[in-house]
Amino acid sequence: MAARLIVLYSPPEDPAAFDAHYRDVHTPIVRRYPGLRDMRLTRPSGVAGREPAFYLVAEMAFESRADLEAALASDAGRESGLDLRNFAGAGLTMLIADDEAGFDA
Amino acid sequence: MAARLIVLYSPPEDPAAFDAHYRDVHTPIVRRYPGLRDMRLTRPSGVAGREPAFYLVAEMAFESRADLEAALASDAGRESGLDLRNFAGAGLTMLIADDEAGFDA
Repeated sequence: MAARLIVLYSPPEDPAAFDAHYRDVHTPIVRRYPGLRDMRLTRPSGVAGREPAFYLVAEMAFESRADLEAALASDAGRESGLDLRNFAGAGLTMLIADDEAGFDA
Repeated sequence: MAARLIVLYSPPEDPAAFDAHYRDVHTPIVRRYPGLRDMRLTRPSGVAGREPAFYLVAEMAFESRADLEAALASDAGRESGLDLRNFAGAGLTMLIADDEAGFDA
């Protein structure tokens, strides 16, 4: 069963600095996660014209929960965790999703 | 460009009551959204054994942002919004994601 690591970043004080650090420093670290299948970035909007609660949503997909946990425990995983303090001071929320089959509406 | 409505529900006081209401009352309303392509539910875990910040993540997919907004403005959309007070008193966060192409790691 595939597993995703979902990171929801709170709105940063300096979006341009956040974007530059995320692109140029953080993403290259994440790309070194062993077992990473793909990475998807979404910049959400709020509903009904409100400001969104999160500025950026990053989803990292792995073959399994074990692969995800191994990636977080790897050198790249530890390095990415330490790097958070360099750009994510506004806060973030991390979730793990086991991708079960969804159901169609 | 496809669009998703993402609803992140905070941990409820009574998970069993939340689950029953979500399944038996709320989901049937959401399934009536015009233009709904599919609905995916995820029950996330926290990272490193911590409690997850959200109890349930619901993702509703539409063909376009216009379809998503029309669904929210429809009878079913208004009804689902009113129904939130019946089970989601712990709070929730709503986001809209325009599904751009991700990038592979």
